[in-house]
Order: sequence, then C-alpha cells, then structure tokens
Amino acid sequence: MPILTSPTNHLKFADSGGKRNSQSQTGPADSMSASPSRKLLTMRELNPRIIEMQYAVRGPLVIRAAEIEKELKQNVKKPFKSVIRVNIGDAHAMQQHSITFIRQVIAACTYPSLLDSAQFPSDVIERARLLLGDCGGCSVGSYSASVGLRVVREHVSDYIRKRDGGIASDPENIILSNGASEAIRSLMKLFNRPDSGGKPVGVMVSIPQYPLYSATTSEYGIYRIGYYLNEEKNWALDIAELKRALEEARPKCRPALLCVINPGNPTGQVLTRANIEEVVKFAYEEKLFLFADEVYQDNVYDPNSKFHSFKKVMHEMGPPYSHMELASFHSASKGYMGECGLRGGYAEIVNMHPEVLTQFKKSISAKLCSSVLGQIAMDCVVKPPAPGEPSYELFAKVTDSTLLKHHRTKRLQEKAEVLNNLHDKASMISEALNGIKGVKCNKVQGAMYAFPRIFLPPKAIEKAKVAESLGQEPDFFYAMNLLESTGVCVIPGSGFGQKEGTYHFRTTILPPPTVFHDFIERFSKFHERFMTMYS
Amino acid sequence: MPILTSPTNHLKFADSGGKRNSQSQTGPADSMSASPSRKLLTMRELNPRIIEMQYAVRGPLVIRAAEIEKELKQNVKKPFKSVIRVNIGDAHAMQQHSITFIRQVIAACTYPSLLDSAQFPSDVIERARLLLGDCGGCSVGSYSASVGLRVVREHVSDYIRKRDGGIASDPENIILSNGASEAIRSLMKLFNRPDSGGKPVGVMVSIPQYPLYSATTSEYGIYRIGYYLNEEKNWALDIAELKRALEEARPKCRPALLCVINPGNPTGQVLTRANIEEVVKFAYEEKLFLFADEVYQDNVYDPNSKFHSFKKVMHEMGPPYSHMELASFHSASKGYMGECGLRGGYAEIVNMHPEVLTQFKKSISAKLCSSVLGQIAMDCVVKPPAPGEPSYELFAKVTDSTLLKHHRTKRLQEKAEVLNNLHDKASMISEALNGIKGVKCNKVQGAMYAFPRIFLPPKAIEKAKVAESLGQEPDFFYAMNLLESTGVCVIPGSGFGQKEGTYHFRTTILPPPTVFHDFIERFSKFHERFMTMYS
Repeated sequence: MPILTSPTNHLKFADSGGKRNSQSQTGPADSMSASPSRKLLTMRELNPRIIEMQYAVRGPLVIRAAEIEKELKQNVKKPFKSVIRVNIGDAHAMQQHSITFIRQVIAACTYPSLLDSAQFPSDVIERARLLLGDCGGCSVGSYSASVGLRVVREHVSDYIRKRDGGIASDPENIILSNGASEAIRSLMKLFNRPDSGGKPVGVMVSIPQYPLYSATTSEYGIYRIGYYLNEEKNWALDIAELKRALEEARPKCRPALLCVINPGNPTGQVLTRANIEEVVKFAYEEKLFLFADEVYQDNVYDPNSKFHSFKKVMHEMGPPYSHMELASFHSASKGYMGECGLRGGYAEIVNMHPEVLTQFKKSISAKLCSSVLGQIAMDCVVKPPAPGEPSYELFAKVTDSTLLKHHRTKRLQEKAEVLNNLHDKASMISEALNGIKGVKCNKVQGAMYAFPRIFLPPKAIEKAKVAESLGQEPDFFYAMNLLESTGVCVIPGSGFGQKEGTYHFRTTILPPPTVFHDFIERFSKFHERFMTMYS
Repeated sequence: MPILTSPTNHLKFADSGGKRNSQSQTGPADSMSASPSRKLLTMRELNPRIIEMQYAVRGPLVIRAAEIEKELKQNVKKPFKSVIRVNIGDAHAMQQHSITFIRQVIAACTYPSLLDSAQFPSDVIERARLLLGDCGGCSVGSYSASVGLRVVREHVSDYIRKRDGGIASDPENIILSNGASEAIRSLMKLFNRPDSGGKPVGVMVSIPQYPLYSATTSEYGIYRIGYYLNEEKNWALDIAELKRALEEARPKCRPALLCVINPGNPTGQVLTRANIEEVVKFAYEEKLFLFADEVYQDNVYDPNSKFHSFKKVMHEMGPPYSHMELASFHSASKGYMGECGLRGGYAEIVNMHPEVLTQFKKSISAKLCSSVLGQIAMDCVVKPPAPGEPSYELFAKVTDSTLLKHHRTKRLQEKAEVLNNLHDKASMISEALNGIKGVKCNKVQGAMYAFPRIFLPPKAIEKAKVAESLGQEPDFFYAMNLLESTGVCVIPGSGFGQKEGTYHFRTTILPPPTVFHDFIERFSKFHERFMTMYS
C-alpha cells in the first residue's frame, strides 16, 4: 500500500514571493514603510495554519510566469515569444467567448435604462425584469438575503429537478455563493469540532485533489484523510483504498466527511454510475456526510461517459441511501460559460438536519450576501434560453441568419462552439501526450484538465534535490524548467498530491487551437531535451 | 466600572428560524427528506463556534419582518400597511438611486458591444476599456489576481494618496475584496494564534460594535476584548476605558489587535483628530496592531466634524507612530454609492512585515479572487468622474442641461443629492428622537445610523423576562413589540452590545423622506403607548 504524502507541503511559495514583495513594499514609493521598525505581527506570531496553507494553482510557478511575461515585454531575450498559461481553469483568459445571453442579462440588470432600448431580445428584458423584481428597491446594489435571491434559488431547484429526472429539489436547500469555493469552505466549517478527546475531525479528500480542499483543511486545522484515485483504472475511486485510508486515519481523527470531485479535477475522469453507487454505500456504512463537487457537470466529452449526480444516484438507490446527507456544488465558472470573474456558485444541501441548516444559514449571514451579479450569472446558467425564445438560436442553434439582428457578433451556437472545442482538445491532448516517450496520460473524459504521468530519469530526480532552492520536488523542478525554457506554465503534480515516486503535472485544455498546438509542440520538444539531458 | 456583557449571546435566532426552516425542508415538496432518518451532523456534532456566532442585523427581528410582509400581502389585518426596514444599511433597498457612472462602466465592461454604441459618454467608454485591458482575455469573466486587478489597486492608491494630502500609498499594499467584511475577516485570521500557554489571541472591539466583529471573533475562537464607547461624550473612545478593558482581559488572552470603526457603526459619531491621536498612542504603547474600519469615510454630515484617516494621523504624528502596522478598510457599499449587492471593498495594509504580507496574499489565493464587477465598482468609487470629463456634470454638478443628452434620467448632481438627503435626515433624527420622552439620542455626525438610548420602565423589563420565549433582552422585547404593532423593524441594542442596564436600538437614516417621516410618527406613537402601558 502506498504511503500517504502531504500533497502540498513541499512548495516553497513564501521564499520567492516573499522577497519580491518585500522589495516593492519597502521601496522608495512608500515613505511610511521606508525605515526599519519593530513589527508586531511577524512569522513567529502569525497563525501557523496560514503558513501551512498552500494553493499551487496560484503558487510560485505562476508568479514566475508573470515575471517572465514582464521580461518579454521589456525585450529580455528568451527562446520563446510568449507565455502559455495552462495552469488554471480560466476559460475567458484563454480567449473563450462569453455567452451573449448571460452578459446581456447582467448588463440590463446593472443599467436598467437598457431595458427600454430595443437593442436586447425580449427574453433578456423579461429575465432582467424578473430578477430586478426580486432585488430590494429593484436594484442589484441592494443586499440579497444571505442565501441569495429567492427567484434564483427557485431556478436552481428547477434546474436540478430537470437534470435529475424529476427528483424534488427545494429552494430552501439552495444557497448561492461567490463561486463554488466559498460554499465548500462555509459548509466544511460546520464539521470542525474536535471530539471529546481533542482529536480533530477528519475529511476524506482524493489524491490527487483540487488544492482548495488541502488549503481549506489546513486553514481550519482539519485532519485531511487522503485517498488515492486509481490511475490504472482511469482515476476511479477504489473502495478498498477508501477503506484503507479511513482505517489508517482513525487513530488520528474523527472521520466525518467524504469529498468527491466528479468530473475530476485535476484528473479529468467521469465516474461511472456503478462507481458512484459503491461510494455512496461506503459513505453510508462509514457514516460519512458527502460533498459532491460537481462543478464540471456540463464538461463531459467521452461519448461513453455520462454525468450522474450523486443526488440522483442516491435517490435511485432508495432508502436508506436516499436519506443520506449530501451537499452538492455547482459554479458559473466552468462548463461552457467559464464566468470565473463573476463569482457565481451554489450549493444544494440535501437531508441536512433542519436545526443545523438554520445554523448554517445564520453563519453565512455575517458575510451579508454573495455578489448579486454573480447570482444573476448563476441564474442564466441554470435557466438558459429555451427553444422558442429569441435568445435560443444564438445560444444553442442557428437556423436563420436574420435572428442575428439583435447581436453584433457573428458567432453562432455559442454553447456548442465552446463544448465542441473542448471536446476536440480533450481527445487531442491524451493522444498527443501518449505519443511522447516517457509520458502517459489517461483519457480526458470530462472537466478541463489532463494530468499526465511523467517518468523522470533518476538523474533529474537527484538534480532536483540539490537544485537552487533546496529540496525541490522533482516535478516542480521539471515544471520550472519547462516554464523557463519554453514559456509553458503547468502545475506540478505535487501541488495536487500523487503516489510517492510518481510524477505528474496538470494542464488545462483551454487554449485556443493554434496556441494549443503550439503548447503541444513546445512541450514535446522540451520533454525530449529534458529526458536526453538527464538520461 | 461597568461589567462587560457579551453583546450577542442573548438573541434566540435558532429558536424561531429553526422551526420555520424545518417545516419547509421536510415539507411535501421534497421527497428526499420526507421521512425521518439518522442524521450524522446534528447540533451535538456541529462546530460549537458556529452555534455561538450571532449577527443581529439579520437576526430574528428581520426574519419576523419578512413574515409580516408576507402576511400583509395575504391581507392579514394589521394596524399598519407596510413594514419599514430601518434595520440594515442597504441604501438601494430604500430607494436610493445608483450613480449612473458606476452602472454604465459595469454594463460596458460586461457587454462590450456597448463600447461601440454612442449611448455612453466617452469617459465611461475609456474607463471600461482601461479596466478590460487589465482582465485576462479582456473579459470580466476571467479570474483576476487574488489581490485584485492591478489597475484598480493603482487607482485605490491614488485615491488614498489624494485623500491623505500626498502621503504615499503602494498598490502592493492594497487588496480588493468582496466588500470590506471579507477583507476584515481574512486579515483577522492572521492573528489567530494562541500563545505557548494556550491562551487565545485577544482582539479589542468596541461596545457597541458592528456585529461582524463579534460574529468573526466567535467563529475564529478569538477572545473579544470589549471596550465601551462613551455615550456621554458622543461615543468617543476613552483611553482610560481602553486600558481598563485591556488590563481586565490580559489574564485571559494575548491582546494583539485593536479595531476602531470611524465614522461609527452603530453609533454615528465621527472621531476627532485628537481622539484618534490618543488611540494611536495607546495602540503603540500596548503593542496593538490597528484595524481602522473606515467604510463610512464619505458619510460625514456635521459641519464641525471631519473624517481623518488613521493612516494620515499616524503619518503626521511622525515616528515611531508612522511606522505602526495598520489595516484600513473601505467599501463600495456605503458612502453616496450604496452598492452593497456588488460586493466591492478594499484593505490597505500599511507597514506589515513583508513576509507576513506574502503569507496573507497566499492565504487569500485559495478563494481565487473577489468579484471582478465588484472590483470595477470600487474602481469607479475611488476614481469618480473628474471636472471636465463628460460624466462629471451628472455625477457632481449640473450647469448645462444639454449635458443630459447621454442620460435617460432627469436626476441631477447624483452624489450631492444622496449626501444632502442623508445630511438632512441625520439632523432630523436626533432632533425628532430627543423630542420624545424617554428617548435620548446623540447627534448623528456621520455614517448611516442613530443609536438612541431608550429608558424602559421596570415593568417592561420584568415583562421581557417572562415573555413568550423566556429570558428576552428588554430591548429585544421592545423592538419586537415595535415591529408587531407598527411594522417598524429596528435592531435592539443588545445585538451590538451596550452598558449593562442601558437599552438602545439602532435605526438607519436611509428611508426616503416620506417613509422617514412615517417611521418617526409610528415610532413616537408606539413609544408613548409602550411607556404608558408599562409605567
């Protein structure tokens, strides 16, 4: 059995970032901090959990990528002309277009004079009026309820009900949030109670995982129970491995929560229905509350895969499984819309004890409410234009070019365009990577990422150990080399966690086709050189 | 010396809210939770700090107010026809108009086709282009850096520098956030380290205070050191009282942080420069990091008062005070703009240890970024239209009505209109309240609130003790009676904290003039009846 490794402890974020910030903070521009003085809050006094937190997706590689971009602007000579950022699932930053309907509704809600102009289709106007009618003083500048606008929560429930083939969904069980991350963080907080002997609560998180989970458990002082996904079985959840992880952790914590990301981040797999059933049974037997991170539910590319929500599977399994406690998360940031910056998300909280649900709602009230415009983005995602509505043609299907009269853009079938592009790149990436010696990549069935394994030569591993900043992870060393010599910014597998002795990186499949091909080319040349150099 | 009372422990949020939610969650609409079943997460397993958290501004009175509104819609007979919500600083919900420039810039950034139309003034177009140029892929749908868009942080620095008469401000010390609340919560987290003996860190918070502070310290397990504001000296900060509170708390905690709200919430005072100097000296001597909650910096009404930022005062005091560590907070939610729902805010972090600053920036990266549209709102607040720019006339001064051609609205001088209205109501409210027997109200010098003292008869206090839900605070009992019999929703002083044996409530000054007069009338009649009933 593999040994658990802490997936994030090895990144040296503070070292590099700290020095840079130090220069700019005490530079001549700021007279107030120009001279040395006593500091009350030093690293010694700082909350140690803050020091422990790591978030590789925005770590040292990304900071270095930004510096290289600056250097390129200043005409510093490099063997490449641009940085390719495949480090983060940030679709619009990669030239993906926004969905017109979403943007028109938000613009109309923000500046209601647009409601009276003829420039927006009637369904945009109607939707904007409906949403504004639920805002205090008919303004998006009013706080919403802490759980979000009622009308949006109703639309979320309708969406879930339809998605899950008619299973009931109650708007009282929906809370809107600034992206899914905020909802995950607020809900995980509920579990943070040590037992009577002082043992911390334990939360099961996959290895590899999306680093929000490790950052949050570190911050809260929660014990993270890492369970390995099975790379050989296309990153499936092995029940035996879940049991092993749980049993090994029991002496150290009180296990309470199981987090599953489906479709997977960073791994790009889509769980089969049978696998989800097994996981539900496991959670039932082991008395674990379930978190289903389902933010990539629209991102399924493999024709043999299908998204099954945990809620639907639990329901169809019948009692006692249909009574299990579950929180499921969705977001406006991924899918075909990619509206990361708008910060829209929701959680559906199923079968939670009513008193606990009330306490949860109270606990988020001190944050007042999530971004109302983010809530509106979420509304458009869960209730997009329907057939027969004027915006439908542009959103989903164009049959008649006269329908473009309302739009200044020439893009057609916005949703399909994005998903088709992602589909193509999902197929291409594993093919391309598997064509490179020393790289092995599972099929990207869904989400926005590939997580290829790289077989590093022992010399490279040795070299990493004695590299500039001592004790680098070999895949960090590899990724930093890739960045410095090709401008390609990926995130090393150690930022997500991986089996000891294996090395990976995460790349998105988001760049537009020409950049995507450029990325593959730069990468394969680099990899060959690297392998030769250290063979 | 007064005895410290926990300002929030007495509100019975869960009792009422819990039952209601319970009904709706297990109602017939949701088949999955229809039958009884084991619950893993009950009140017994719930994080006890979540139970302890209270946020009165959204507490049981507000929940009841919403119910009464529903009852009115269903034609339930009441001695009033509408609910008047003066419980929360939510300006747009009280019919305050938005600032056209802010909304046009956000609309143009959201739907860039508007940039090519002639309907927005050129400065709106320019600003939108500048902001979009700083967004990945020129889209507000891209994540910004965790600290926020660079260009907005530069504008924030420019604003602070001008506000403070030229004192330097570094964009590297600015972070943008979802309202000021989020920044306060993220920064307070840094201090949460018990000492070697296990004593918690101590944070000094005023009594009365804005309940974000008590909710956050409860959630984090931080020891709250309450210091009383001096009601007799118009809610000034007494240094002797600060010392008393600190000395009393020392055996129980490691004091590290002093929070000051200026202009005051819920108290409406504006601190004098001399008082701020005293507080800075006190913080220096006692080795306390300073948090200056300055979200009402634009809301000063008293011609004898002026807003002085803590940063400016510290700087002008010279060393060693000018080297002190300080975080100052501002927001797009208050002032004349009142854009609460957009969730824009910032913190300026001055003189923080560079390594700690880096750690802080890392710690917020797991949340990815604050709402980009909220950041854009903040941008417009710190860099509003300037004289000579096309939007200036509408924003600040109209001299030529032809300038209205760009606007569908007839409102003039938007900023002045809002602030003049608030100014008038600030004068009116203390006058009106002081004209009522058994009510005493300090002058509202700034912010958006009055916090009058009510002198309750002993019989009313007795009655509260035996009221329906046992052990109500007398001012809660009073406020609930006010709500049930007049529809006026205020927040009892016990939600903010007050000297033992004194009773208050907080009301905003936000309702439009006719509603405002109606509120005063309903209130004075109620108060008279109440006093007669219990005399």
